[in-house]
Amino acid sequence: MAAKFENAVTAAAGFRAAGVHVGVKTSNKEKRDIALICSDRPCAAAGVFTTNRVKAAPVLYDMEVVKTGKARAIVANSGNANACTGQRGKEDAAAMAAAAAAALGLDQEDVLVCSTGVIGQFMPMDRVKAGIAAAAGALSETGGRDAAEAILTTDVHRKEMAKTVDLGGIDVHIGGMAKGSGMICPHMATMLCFLTTDAVIAADTLRKALNEAVSRTFNQISVDGDMSTNDTVLILANGAAGNAEITEGGAAYDAFLAALKDICLYLAKKIARDGEGATHLLEASVINAKTEADALSVAKSVVSSDLVKAAIFGKDANWGRIICSVGYAGVDLDPTKVDISLESYKGTVTVAKDGCGLAFDEGLAEEILSEENVTAVIDLKAGSAAGKAWGCDLTYDYVKINADYRT
Amino acid sequence: MAAKFENAVTAAAGFRAAGVHVGVKTSNKEKRDIALICSDRPCAAAGVFTTNRVKAAPVLYDMEVVKTGKARAIVANSGNANACTGQRGKEDAAAMAAAAAAALGLDQEDVLVCSTGVIGQFMPMDRVKAGIAAAAGALSETGGRDAAEAILTTDVHRKEMAKTVDLGGIDVHIGGMAKGSGMICPHMATMLCFLTTDAVIAADTLRKALNEAVSRTFNQISVDGDMSTNDTVLILANGAAGNAEITEGGAAYDAFLAALKDICLYLAKKIARDGEGATHLLEASVINAKTEADALSVAKSVVSSDLVKAAIFGKDANWGRIICSVGYAGVDLDPTKVDISLESYKGTVTVAKDGCGLAFDEGLAEEILSEENVTAVIDLKAGSAAGKAWGCDLTYDYVKINADYRT
Repeated sequence: MAAKFENAVTAAAGFRAAGVHVGVKTSNKEKRDIALICSDRPCAAAGVFTTNRVKAAPVLYDMEVVKTGKARAIVANSGNANACTGQRGKEDAAAMAAAAAAALGLDQEDVLVCSTGVIGQFMPMDRVKAGIAAAAGALSETGGRDAAEAILTTDVHRKEMAKTVDLGGIDVHIGGMAKGSGMICPHMATMLCFLTTDAVIAADTLRKALNEAVSRTFNQISVDGDMSTNDTVLILANGAAGNAEITEGGAAYDAFLAALKDICLYLAKKIARDGEGATHLLEASVINAKTEADALSVAKSVVSSDLVKAAIFGKDANWGRIICSVGYAGVDLDPTKVDISLESYKGTVTVAKDGCGLAFDEGLAEEILSEENVTAVIDLKAGSAAGKAWGCDLTYDYVKINADYRT
Repeated sequence: MAAKFENAVTAAAGFRAAGVHVGVKTSNKEKRDIALICSDRPCAAAGVFTTNRVKAAPVLYDMEVVKTGKARAIVANSGNANACTGQRGKEDAAAMAAAAAAALGLDQEDVLVCSTGVIGQFMPMDRVKAGIAAAAGALSETGGRDAAEAILTTDVHRKEMAKTVDLGGIDVHIGGMAKGSGMICPHMATMLCFLTTDAVIAADTLRKALNEAVSRTFNQISVDGDMSTNDTVLILANGAAGNAEITEGGAAYDAFLAALKDICLYLAKKIARDGEGATHLLEASVINAKTEADALSVAKSVVSSDLVKAAIFGKDANWGRIICSVGYAGVDLDPTKVDISLESYKGTVTVAKDGCGLAFDEGLAEEILSEENVTAVIDLKAGSAAGKAWGCDLTYDYVKINADYRT
């Protein structure tokens, strides 16, 4: 399975993309902010959306589109979330789909719409429509990179990954791009993620695979515990690869799902690492849990704790905060059995055993925590299930960015 | 109902207290760190404890003591939490009770024990025992202030309040002291709070009143969403006032509960305001909810959001983040009905109506948010229930304190 990290969303046959600058947010003088992704033929489509009761207009719009199991294009903007914008917001989301459809020669029902940015302001539809027209004109098979840039907000780095899977001698491609940062949250992770594939797969099967992949990846990351009004993961499968249809339970399904999970995991970790102001990627790896659900809950609780996150920023092996967050994960566990180790490329140090602290080398611990990628291994000694979650540290810059984002 | 804010825990007849310095944490060269509270006669006792699965040794110890409904003294230390300290920790908690009992001429079963501070280190029992003996020698009817100081950790200010209630012509006193800061949490708030009263009231009735008071006060504050291993609220009632026994359902019960709630609310708000690094007290006031439980959940969700907290620090009227946190409170509500106003002594500004933003005076909003005490009023227009919660803003100093607390 070869992987690539640029133009990922156009890696699959039959997909073109573009990202253009139009200044959705007038203070944005340069960055691309309108993305367009389009397939040359109809696609099976599936989506996963925020569980926040407050859903942005494009989320409500897309939820209806994916019910049909079909779509062919995605139009997205950064700079304005089109959330809490009432009836006018709904009309604007529909108008974005209509504008993209007109520019692409499609029906409005073929187009999915996503927005990310500030909540509660109306979309500057004149500029947005101009941007959509420009993006349609700029579509190309190497436009994935520009599209990936266009959906970023406070993200520092593009997030892209594509893989090739051999299904019975036929190369099938899957690619994805994502944006995260801030409001990365419990339950449905966050963010926008758009996935494309040329696999032949029915919408129901595609939805099942997407849900499975998202639950172990995007739903297991946390930047600040806030759940956005706009969180959306979309996947389009256009069948251009011509493989035998992927059906549940078969080897091809397993291979497809494995690649999809790999891509989602890579993008999810990139989002966690790229959390606002972050300097570390923190992985919580829970082992020997009674159930996978227990392991996932405990891991998520650890990476979501502000106190743990601040300690990681301070390179402080404060395992007391880790075990504390294990304790309030809502999982039935025996705290007197919990072992905790901290790991990075620099080594491993076991800091607690059977719920109690150990004497450990503080110098080594600090060295381990100086690495960018740090893992806390939590052994519950209660069974054989495991689960992971990812988060970032809590830094001065997080506060700085979020004390002054809107204005 | 007269109120006083010093020596509160010794305001009730028959209670003496002391707070001494012994250097539980060797880096603590001056601050008092051993507190002792003692009644001159037996007391009815009740407690509320952390729901964290990881409970500190003194919490486990006290849970057994309060089951008897009786106690007579409280010994507490700051600087070391005696949490995650295994069998030795349990022995140390019992030894603290035994040392206090010996110094006071009581039985060990009469003494409740609390600890707060660093997790996972053994108690320096020689120093702690010396401190307990010194505190016993220093007990006085004006020792409440010293005791209140002795339980502080990163708290900046003592938190004390006492009230006098006239029950059928007899003055009954209730007083309390608390410590908070950091690890102020969901469910059971946080912190230590010790309450004393000279009321005649049975243990069962006392427990009922305490639970009722805690659920609307300490359980509705949040500093960082972390739930400590040591959270404890204790109350001792020694009956010295000689009032007719307070029984549930009577007017005396209502008056007693009202005063107890006032004290708990005052202390809870002090804890929220005194959150690590905080510069604002944020109140979320949810009105016209379907049920009180809905209102309490939504209010708690708002004050717990890092993004809301960072916006308040930045004096940014970012109502989008408020409505977003309303949306993920886990409450069934109609986001298109939500109105949001921001209030302080400087005035009121309505920033959202029916789930959408309003044009509002940004200058006025910033002026309102420049006040230390800020309220977000969230009108759900779904019923007639109401509920409040309190939190603080998220600041650079929070990160600074918590990136470097343990070492």
